[in-house]
Amino acid sequence: MRIAVLGLGTVGRHVVEALDSERELFRSRLGEELEVTRILVRDREKERPAGLDGRITYDPSAILADPSIEIVVELLGGLEPARTLIEQALRAGKSVVTANKEVIARSGPALSRSATPGADLLFEAAVAGGIPIIRSLQESLAGNRLEAIYGIVNGTTNYILSRMQQGGGGFADALDEARRLGYAEADPSDDLDAVDAVRKIAILASLAFGGWVDVDAVAKEGIRGITEDDMAEAKRLGGVIKLIARAEATQDGLSLGVSPTLIPLGHPLADVPGAQNAVYVRGEPIGELLFQGPGAGGPATSSAVIGDIIDAARSRRTGGRSVDLPREPAPLVPLGQHAHAYYLRLRLRNETGALALVAQAFASAGIGLSSVRQPMSASGESIVSLVTAPTRRGQLDEARLRLRRSPTLLAEESLILAELEPMDAPSAR
Amino acid sequence: MRIAVLGLGTVGRHVVEALDSERELFRSRLGEELEVTRILVRDREKERPAGLDGRITYDPSAILADPSIEIVVELLGGLEPARTLIEQALRAGKSVVTANKEVIARSGPALSRSATPGADLLFEAAVAGGIPIIRSLQESLAGNRLEAIYGIVNGTTNYILSRMQQGGGGFADALDEARRLGYAEADPSDDLDAVDAVRKIAILASLAFGGWVDVDAVAKEGIRGITEDDMAEAKRLGGVIKLIARAEATQDGLSLGVSPTLIPLGHPLADVPGAQNAVYVRGEPIGELLFQGPGAGGPATSSAVIGDIIDAARSRRTGGRSVDLPREPAPLVPLGQHAHAYYLRLRLRNETGALALVAQAFASAGIGLSSVRQPMSASGESIVSLVTAPTRRGQLDEARLRLRRSPTLLAEESLILAELEPMDAPSAR
Repeated sequence: MRIAVLGLGTVGRHVVEALDSERELFRSRLGEELEVTRILVRDREKERPAGLDGRITYDPSAILADPSIEIVVELLGGLEPARTLIEQALRAGKSVVTANKEVIARSGPALSRSATPGADLLFEAAVAGGIPIIRSLQESLAGNRLEAIYGIVNGTTNYILSRMQQGGGGFADALDEARRLGYAEADPSDDLDAVDAVRKIAILASLAFGGWVDVDAVAKEGIRGITEDDMAEAKRLGGVIKLIARAEATQDGLSLGVSPTLIPLGHPLADVPGAQNAVYVRGEPIGELLFQGPGAGGPATSSAVIGDIIDAARSRRTGGRSVDLPREPAPLVPLGQHAHAYYLRLRLRNETGALALVAQAFASAGIGLSSVRQPMSASGESIVSLVTAPTRRGQLDEARLRLRRSPTLLAEESLILAELEPMDAPSAR
Repeated sequence: MRIAVLGLGTVGRHVVEALDSERELFRSRLGEELEVTRILVRDREKERPAGLDGRITYDPSAILADPSIEIVVELLGGLEPARTLIEQALRAGKSVVTANKEVIARSGPALSRSATPGADLLFEAAVAGGIPIIRSLQESLAGNRLEAIYGIVNGTTNYILSRMQQGGGGFADALDEARRLGYAEADPSDDLDAVDAVRKIAILASLAFGGWVDVDAVAKEGIRGITEDDMAEAKRLGGVIKLIARAEATQDGLSLGVSPTLIPLGHPLADVPGAQNAVYVRGEPIGELLFQGPGAGGPATSSAVIGDIIDAARSRRTGGRSVDLPREPAPLVPLGQHAHAYYLRLRLRNETGALALVAQAFASAGIGLSSVRQPMSASGESIVSLVTAPTRRGQLDEARLRLRRSPTLLAEESLILAELEPMDAPSAR
C-alpha cells in the first residue's frame, strides 16, 4: 500500500524512517507492504537525510492526483496549507492520518464530512502523543456514559511546573531549562498560555461527550502567573499545582476549561513527572481510568501515527471504519456557572480581627472554606492561604470584592483553581 | 442488531441491564439498535431479575440456530461449555465477545481460525477488566517493537499485598479482609497461586510479541509465602512487594513469569492501590506507557464487554475486522536462563565473619550485590537483607548452596524477585 508523507520535521523523519526500516515487521502484521512513495516538503534549500531518493516533491498535486497513493500522512502542522491538503486528500478518496490538533480542533467534523466513503480520518497523535486515548474513547469506552476527563496534555508546561515544584527556581528559570532541553519551542506562547491544551481537551471532550466543542468557547489560563510561593504553599497544603485540562458533564451541559489547578498529592495526576502526559477518565460503568506516557517528541508521536497508518490500511482492505465525528455543537455550561473550589493567598495587615474579616467575607457570600492556613508572623503583614468549598465564580468574586473594600487586605497574591479528588475515592463509584 | 448473552452472573446482569436501559445512547452512537433477545442460563431453580421476560433460555441451540442473532456474548466463565459454545457461534458466523481469559489463553488461536469470515472474536474484558489494553496492543501500538510488559493484573492479590503493606497484618488477615469485601472468592486459589495472572500475561504477550504463548510454559509463584517481615523489609529498602506479571523480549526469545516482586517506590506500579490493575508497556518508538484502572467487578468488566459489542456491531456493518491472533508458538527463553535481580533475607549466626561469608558466597558465584542491609543485633542471630545484581537462577542457586553448606546460615527466610526501574528512567529510551 502506497503512502505519502506531508512534512519532514522531527515526526515526519521518524515516521518515514520507521516505515522504511521495519517493512518486514509491518508486512507480517498487516499481510501487506507499506511503502512511502512521496514526501512533500516546502523548503527547497534545506538539506534532507540520505535514502529519500527520488521521493521528495514540492508539489502537492504529485500526491493528490496520484491514484496509487492510498494513505496521506499530514505532519506539516499549523492550519494552512494542512487543512486544505487534508480535505483534498479525503475528497480524492485517500485515507488521512494526521497529528495536527489545530486542524482537528478547528475543522474535524467538516473534514470528516468531506471524505469520500472508504476514506478514513485518523488523528491519535493529535492528543497526548503516544498515549492511545483517542481510540480508547472512540472504541473501548463507547459503552460508557463518561462523566469527566482530566488531563495533563501539554508536556512543556508540565516540565516547567514539575521543575518549579522540585525547587528548581521560579517560572523564568524553569522555562530557560525547558528551552535548553528542547521541551519548549523558541516561541512557547501556545504552550504557556494553554492554547495547545485547549485544542486537545476540546478534541477529547468532543469524542467523549458526543457534541463538537468550539475551541474558542473554552476558558483558559496559562502558567505564566505561577510563582515559587504558589508552589511552596501548595506543598504545605498537601498538594501540587499542575496545568489541568478539564471536561465535566453536568446537568447544565459540558463544563470545560484549562487552568493551573491545585490538586492533592494523592491524585494520580499529581505524580506525572517531567514532560509526560496523562489522561484521567471517569464514567459509568467503567469507574476511573488513567493513561500515562510520553505526550510529545518524534518517537512517541510516530508510534501513534504508525498505529493509525496500520489501522487505515486494514480498513481499506476490509471496509472503511473510522468512527464519525459528532456534527452537532456540544452544549456548554456558560463560563462561571459551574462550581469549583479555589485556592487564594491573601496578604493582610497583621491586626486583630484580620482573619475574622476574611472568614466573614466568604461566609457572607455563602462560601464554605475547606482549608485555612495562617503562619505566625511578627511583622506588620500576615499571609493567609485558603481553599474554598466548590463555589460559582460569581459568588467568589462577591467575596473578593468585599475583601478589597477593606483596608485590611493588602494584596491578593494568588487565585488558583483547586480540584480533583484522589482516584478510587468512594465518592467516585 | 440482535444479541444473545450466555451466563447471567454479575457481569452478565450488568451487560444486559446496560443494553436494556441505554438503548437510545447506543443507537445514537452506532446508528443501529442493540437488542438482547436471548439469555442462556443453566440453573432452572435460580430466581432471575425482573424484566427479562421471555428471553431466558436453557437451550444453547435456541441461540446458535437462530440466524437473527448476530453477536454472542459469552460470560459463563470456565473452560467448558464456554469454549464449545464460542466455537459453535463463530462457526455459525456470529461474532463473539467474551471475558473468558481461560478459554482465550488455552484456545484463542484455534477459536480464531474456526470463525466464518465476518465473525469477530473480541476479548477486551479478559485481561485487566475495564482497562483498554487488548485493543491498544492490537491497534494503537501495532507500529512498535515492544520490549517489555509488566502488569498488576490480579486485583485480589493486589488488594491483599496493598493491605499488608499498609500494616494490615499478615497474609491470613489480609485474605480474610479481602473475602469480607468481596475481593476474594470462596476458593481464591487461582488468584493466590498466580494461575489467573499467568493466563492474562500469556494473552498480553501473545498479542504484543507476535507468537502464541503456552500458559503451561510460564513460570509462576503465588503470594501465599509473603510475610509481614518481607513487607517491612521491602519498605526499609525503599520498595514494595507486588505480584508482577512480566513479559520481556530478549535476544533468546520471550521471558515470561508471574511472581511476587520487590519494586522500587518510584516505579508507577508501586502505587497501584487496592484491587486496581495496571499495565506498563515499554517499546520502540513509544517509550513507556502506563494504563491503570479497575481490573475486575461487574461494572468495569461490562464496560469492556459493551465496548467490544459496539465494535463487533460496527464491523458487521462495515466489514469484518478483528485482528488475527498469532498462530505460531512464541519462542520462550527456557526457565532460569534470563537474568533477574533477587531479594534475599538470611538469618545468620551472629559471629565474626558472618557477613564476609555471605559476601564471599555471592562473589564466588560471580554475582554482584546492589544493596545490603544488616541491622544491629545483640542476640545470637542477625538478619541480612540483600538485593543482587541481575543474575541467572543457576548462578544464584550456586551461591545459595554454598551458604547452606555453612553452619553460619541458620535459615533463608525469603527469596523474592527484585526488578523494574522507575518509569522515565534514562535507560528506558
